[in-house]
Amino acid sequence: MSAAPSIGIGLAGFGTVGSGVWNTLESNGELITNRTDGSTRLEIARILVRDLAKARNTTGEVPSELFTTDWKTLIEDPAVKIVVELIGGTTDAYDIVAAALKAGKPVVTGNKALLAERGAELFAISRETKTPIHFEAAVAGGIPIIRSLQDSFIGNHIHSFSGIINGTSNYILGRMTDAGLDYETALKEAQKLGYAEADPALDVNGWDAAHKALLLATLAYGFPIDPAEIHVSGIEQVRPADIKFAKNLGYVVKLLAIIRQHKDGAVECRVQPSFIAKSNILASVHDVFNAVAVHGDTVGESLFYGRGAGQNPTASSVVADIVEAARGIELSNHRGFLPYTESGSMRPVSETSTAYYVRFDVTDRPGVIAEIARVLADHEIGISGTHSPVNPDDPDADFVDVVFLLHTCPFGNLQRALAEVEKLDCVNSEPVVFRIESLG
Amino acid sequence: MSAAPSIGIGLAGFGTVGSGVWNTLESNGELITNRTDGSTRLEIARILVRDLAKARNTTGEVPSELFTTDWKTLIEDPAVKIVVELIGGTTDAYDIVAAALKAGKPVVTGNKALLAERGAELFAISRETKTPIHFEAAVAGGIPIIRSLQDSFIGNHIHSFSGIINGTSNYILGRMTDAGLDYETALKEAQKLGYAEADPALDVNGWDAAHKALLLATLAYGFPIDPAEIHVSGIEQVRPADIKFAKNLGYVVKLLAIIRQHKDGAVECRVQPSFIAKSNILASVHDVFNAVAVHGDTVGESLFYGRGAGQNPTASSVVADIVEAARGIELSNHRGFLPYTESGSMRPVSETSTAYYVRFDVTDRPGVIAEIARVLADHEIGISGTHSPVNPDDPDADFVDVVFLLHTCPFGNLQRALAEVEKLDCVNSEPVVFRIESLG
Repeated sequence: MSAAPSIGIGLAGFGTVGSGVWNTLESNGELITNRTDGSTRLEIARILVRDLAKARNTTGEVPSELFTTDWKTLIEDPAVKIVVELIGGTTDAYDIVAAALKAGKPVVTGNKALLAERGAELFAISRETKTPIHFEAAVAGGIPIIRSLQDSFIGNHIHSFSGIINGTSNYILGRMTDAGLDYETALKEAQKLGYAEADPALDVNGWDAAHKALLLATLAYGFPIDPAEIHVSGIEQVRPADIKFAKNLGYVVKLLAIIRQHKDGAVECRVQPSFIAKSNILASVHDVFNAVAVHGDTVGESLFYGRGAGQNPTASSVVADIVEAARGIELSNHRGFLPYTESGSMRPVSETSTAYYVRFDVTDRPGVIAEIARVLADHEIGISGTHSPVNPDDPDADFVDVVFLLHTCPFGNLQRALAEVEKLDCVNSEPVVFRIESLG
Repeated sequence: MSAAPSIGIGLAGFGTVGSGVWNTLESNGELITNRTDGSTRLEIARILVRDLAKARNTTGEVPSELFTTDWKTLIEDPAVKIVVELIGGTTDAYDIVAAALKAGKPVVTGNKALLAERGAELFAISRETKTPIHFEAAVAGGIPIIRSLQDSFIGNHIHSFSGIINGTSNYILGRMTDAGLDYETALKEAQKLGYAEADPALDVNGWDAAHKALLLATLAYGFPIDPAEIHVSGIEQVRPADIKFAKNLGYVVKLLAIIRQHKDGAVECRVQPSFIAKSNILASVHDVFNAVAVHGDTVGESLFYGRGAGQNPTASSVVADIVEAARGIELSNHRGFLPYTESGSMRPVSETSTAYYVRFDVTDRPGVIAEIARVLADHEIGISGTHSPVNPDDPDADFVDVVFLLHTCPFGNLQRALAEVEKLDCVNSEPVVFRIESLG
C-alpha cells in the first residue's frame, strides 16, 4: 500500500454531526484508507466554530490550532481541499458553500433547508465551477438514498416515492398509536429524549420532510422546484381518536411525503398525515426511523430504511460523501452533479387525487351531517362512511367531532367543498384532512 | 451536450436478464446519456447465444449481425469494451470472465455461484489486470446493497447482516403461513408462477442464499471465504405445524442469512430457517421480495428492500454496473475492486449461539420426553418449553411430533446432543432445527 498524501477537510460547524465526523475519522479513518487501497487518507485541517472556548465532546483531543471563528479561513487555507458545511441555516451557510465552490473546493453538506431554498443558485455555481455539492446527509440521515438515485437507479425512470422522512413526527405518531398519548404529551416525550428540538416547528409542521421531498424530486426529475409548489401539512392536528379510527379500519397514521410523476410528465409532491394499510411495509417503520420507498420503471418497488437523523448515522453519510469528494479530487473528475437536464413542471395539489378522512368539529344538533353531506354532494364528492364518536363521559355534549370518509376525488374539489362547509354555522373550526393512500 | 462516442457492450447470454438489459437500454438509454451529462452512450455491440435460430422476445428487433455463438468474439472484437456475463454456471462463465479481465475489459455479472465458488481466483485476476468485476446483480437483484457497502458505508465497520435473500423460499414460506399450504403445494405454486425453477434445489436448500451471503461477508470483511465454511440448511423440512407454532409465540418463520463479526474478529455466516419476532421489519417482507438489514458501527441499523430477482430488477442493477464500468473506462480509473485488504477467519458454526426450536419425530410412548430432556440436560442445554401437538383425527397415534424450545446455547452443544437423541430408539428420524433469532 502506497502512503498517499492526506486530504485536508475544513469542517464548518462542530456541533453534534461535526463532532460525529471527527469521531468517525478517528475510529475508522484507517479502515477507509485500507478500503480505498491506500489512496484516501483524510485529515481534518480546520474547524469553524462560534466559540473557541467551548468544551468539545470528542474521541481524543482536537488540537486547538485547528479551530477558527472566521469562515474565510476554510476557503483560503490551501490545506483545506474539501469544505463540509454543518452550521445549518440558509444565510452564512450559503456564503460558505458558494465561496467554497467558487474556490474550486468540493462541498459536503447535510443542510436540507439550504438546498431546498437556495439549491438552484448553488447547483448553478457548482456546474459553472465544475465543483460538486454532495448532500447524502441532507435526506434521511444515514440512508443512502441520494447515491442510490444517482448511481444504482441511473437506468430507471422514477415513477414515485413514498417516504417517512421525519423521525420526530414518526416518533410522536408512534407513541400516540402504541401508548394512546395525546399529541402534546408525545411531543414533550420526544423533546425529553432529544428527538425533537426545543422549537419543533419544522419537524411537526411537515416542512423538514418537505425540504427532503423537494431534493428527492429534484434529483429524480432533473429540474429545480420552488418550495411554494409543495403542499405541506403537519401532524399538530392529529388526535388519538383519529389514530384509533384509522386502526379500526386496518390503517396506520403516518406523516407521508408523496412524490409521483404523472403520465403527462407533471410531478406531484406533497407532505400530509396519511392513512396507510397496516400490511404495507411503511406501516412497520417505528420509532424515529425513516424509510423511503422508490418505484422505478425497471427496478420496480424498492425501499430504504434506517436512522434518519442523529450524530452517527448522519456522520456516516457525511464521511461517505467526503470520500467521494476526495476521489473526485484525486481523479480531477467529480461525480454527483445535479444535471438539471430535464425540464418539467409541478402538478398543482388541487389536481392530485386520493380518498380522504376529514374530521369536523361541530355543534351537535339534528341536521349537521345532512348539511355537510349536501355540500360534499354539491362538489361531486362521494361519501363512503360517516361517524360521530360518542363521548362516554358526556353523551349529550354540545360540541362533537364528526368524521367523514370520502371517495377518491381531486384535492381541489375537497378544498372548495371544505371552504363552504366552514361557513356553515354548525361548524366550529377548520376541518382536519388526512389522505388515505393506496400505496404500490 | 457533447456527442460522446458510444461504448460497446458484449452480452454473454440473452435469456431473461440479457433481454431485460437490451430492453432497458432501448427504453432508457437516452435517459442515462442525459443523466451523465452526455458522457455515457451505451450500445450493445455483440450478443453471445447458444442458438442463432431461437426467436427473441425484446423491445424492437435485435440486428441479427450482433449475435454470435463463439464467446471469444466478445473478447476479440475491439468494439466490445465491457463484457456482461449472464450465462450462469461456473465453467464457461469462468472462462469468459477470466478472458475478459485479461483482455482489460471490465466485467459485469450477476452470477453469484461463480463468484462464491471461484471469486477468489477471479478477483485476483481483476486486481492483477486492474480491471474490475461489478456484481450488484449477483446479490438481491435490484437492491443496491453492493454499491452501498462499497461507497455509502465505506466509513463503517459492519457488525452484522441479516437477510431474506432468496425470493423463492420467502414466497413458499409466505404461502405456508398465510394460506396454510404444505411445502409441496406451495412449491408447485411457486413453480407455476415462475418463481421457482423446474429444479428448485439451490433455492430451497439454502445454497442460493448462502452464495449471496458469502459475497456480502467477503465485501464487508475483506477476505476470501470458502463456501464450505458456511452452515446452510434449507426450507424443505418446514411444515405448516412449525409455522403455526411459531405464530402462537409471536414469531414468523423466514429463511435467514446471518452474517456477524464477533469481537475477536471471527465472522459467523449461516443460512437457516429461523423464527423472528413478528414486530421485526423483516417479518413484513412478503412474497418474492428480498431484504437485507445491515448494522454498521456508525450508521446503525439500515435496511434495503426490493425485488431480489426477475428480468427488470436484475437488469436495473446490471445496467447501473455497465454505467459504472463505462465511467471507469472514460476516466481510465475504475472503482469497485474487492480489496481483500483485511485478513480474517470464520467462526465455526458450532460456536454460534441462539435459542432453538427443534422438532422430533418420535414413537409415542411414556418416557419419550423424559429421555430427550435427559440428553439435552447432559449437554447443558436448557429447555424453555416442550409440546406435543395432538392429532385431533387420531389422538392415540403411534408416531407423533414433539417440539422443544431451547435456551440459547452454542450450536455445537445442540449438534452433539441431537446426535445422541437420534440414537434413542423412540426417535424415528433426524430432528429438524430452527434458529430463534433475536435481531437488532
